[in-house]
Amino acid sequence: MAVRVRIVGVGMGPHQVTPEAADALRAADYAIAADKGPDDGLLAVRREIAAAHDLPVVAVPDPKRDRQPEGDGAYVGAVAHWHAARVAAYEAVLAERGGTAAFLVWGDPAFYDSTIRIVESIAARGVVEVEYDVLPGISALQLLAARSRIVLHDVGQPLHVTTGRLLAAAVAGGQTNIAVLLNRSVELDGLEDWTIWWGANLGAAGERLVSGRVGDVAEAVVAARDAAKAEAGWVMDLFLLRAPAPGQDDDGAA
Amino acid sequence: MAVRVRIVGVGMGPHQVTPEAADALRAADYAIAADKGPDDGLLAVRREIAAAHDLPVVAVPDPKRDRQPEGDGAYVGAVAHWHAARVAAYEAVLAERGGTAAFLVWGDPAFYDSTIRIVESIAARGVVEVEYDVLPGISALQLLAARSRIVLHDVGQPLHVTTGRLLAAAVAGGQTNIAVLLNRSVELDGLEDWTIWWGANLGAAGERLVSGRVGDVAEAVVAARDAAKAEAGWVMDLFLLRAPAPGQDDDGAA
Repeated sequence: MAVRVRIVGVGMGPHQVTPEAADALRAADYAIAADKGPDDGLLAVRREIAAAHDLPVVAVPDPKRDRQPEGDGAYVGAVAHWHAARVAAYEAVLAERGGTAAFLVWGDPAFYDSTIRIVESIAARGVVEVEYDVLPGISALQLLAARSRIVLHDVGQPLHVTTGRLLAAAVAGGQTNIAVLLNRSVELDGLEDWTIWWGANLGAAGERLVSGRVGDVAEAVVAARDAAKAEAGWVMDLFLLRAPAPGQDDDGAA
Repeated sequence: MAVRVRIVGVGMGPHQVTPEAADALRAADYAIAADKGPDDGLLAVRREIAAAHDLPVVAVPDPKRDRQPEGDGAYVGAVAHWHAARVAAYEAVLAERGGTAAFLVWGDPAFYDSTIRIVESIAARGVVEVEYDVLPGISALQLLAARSRIVLHDVGQPLHVTTGRLLAAAVAGGQTNIAVLLNRSVELDGLEDWTIWWGANLGAAGERLVSGRVGDVAEAVVAARDAAKAEAGWVMDLFLLRAPAPGQDDDGAA
C-alpha cells in the first residue's frame, strides 16, 4: 500500500496555519522534520505546531551542506549532493513507518524550498510507493509585505523574485522591483537611491524590520541582521528593493 | 477617535482563513466589501466567510471601470479614476460607521490588489482619521503551485511575476520562468515549446487546471477558461510559464 505524504505549508507560525493545513496535520500519523542541530529554532516551532495538532514528530538529522562551494557549477552540485542525502534519509523513515506522513514546511512549499523536489525524488526511485499532495502556506515575502503594509509591485507592474546571489544580474537586466531571498549577506552597493523594505526572522524569535532609502538605512539593516541572529541563534532575511521613479531627484520629489 | 481598519487576506476560501485572520474578523465591527453586481461570486464567498465569524457585511456598489482604455497612459489613468471613486465610497462608510472595519481581500493584499492603496489614500485625505494594518492570505499563485505540486522556480533561480499585458515584454527581456496574472485572454503565440501550468477560479466555483507543453495544451486552456466562466459567471485565471531547458530538443530530451 502506498505511503501518503502531505507537504503542508504552515506559514510563519502557529497563527498562520490554515484550517485545511490543520486538518491535514490532525489526520496524519507523524511529521517528518529536518533537525539542523541543537540551535534549530525552526524545528522548535515545528514541534510546537505539531503538538498543537496531536502529531508526533520524527526529527531527521539534516545532512551537512557545503555552503561555500568552489568553482563553476559547484553551487548546483552542492545542492544536488545535499538533496540526495535528504532523499535517502526521508525514504528510510517512510519505508519503516508507512501510513500518512506530513512535512511541515516553514512558509510555503512553492518558494525556495526543497521538500517537493525531495518527495518527487523519493516517488521516482520507487523503493517506497508514494502518493503526495501539497497545501500552501503564508510565505516570508507575504509577511514582509503585510508588516510593511505594501503591495509588492507598482500598479500593473512586475515583481521579480530572486536570490541574493542573482540580485546584481537582476539590476543589470533592468528590473526595478525586486524581492530578494536567501541572503548570505546584504549587498546594496550602488543602490543607494533605491527604497528597501527589509525583514529578518519574520514571525519568529528575533523578528526585525527596517525600511527606507538604501543610502540612509543600509547600516541599520546590517545591525538589525546581526541583532536578529544574536537573539535567535539563526537568521533568515529577505527584502524588497524598488528603483527610484524615473526623473525623481535626490530629494525624492518628482 | 481614529477608525481602525484591518486589511485581511482571506486566501482562496474559508478553508484558508488563517487563525490570525479569523481573530481579526471576529474582533471587527463590520466588513466592507465591493459589490460588483448580482453575479459577483467573490462577494458571495466573502459573505460566507464574514458570516462564519459573526461579522456583518456592508456591500458597497463598485464604481464602473473602463476595462478597454484607449491611448498612451490610458490604462494607468483608468485605474486612477476607478481608484478615486472607490476611495470616496469607502471613506463615506468609514465616516458614518466608525469603529473597526475589515476589508476581506480575496487571496493576498500584497499581490495585484487595490485595497492597501485605497486605505492609504483615505488616510492621506485626512477626512477620516484611520489606523490600519494588513494580514496576509494565501494567493492564487500559491494555490496554483500547490495544486500543480510544483516549486515556482528552478533551483536557486528567479521567478518573474507579471501581467498578461506585459508577458511579451518579459519574454523579450529574457525571463524564462514567468507567472502571469490579470489576463483578459491567454496569448501564447510563439511559446509552443514552453511548459505551462494554468488555473482558473482556484478555490471557487468553476475551478479548472491544465498543464503541459503549450503547443499541446493551448486549446485545452482556452476551452477550460470558457468552461470556468460558464460555470461561475466570472473567470480569474493565472499561469506559470517555463522556457524549455537550453539544448532541449523537440522530444523534451536533453
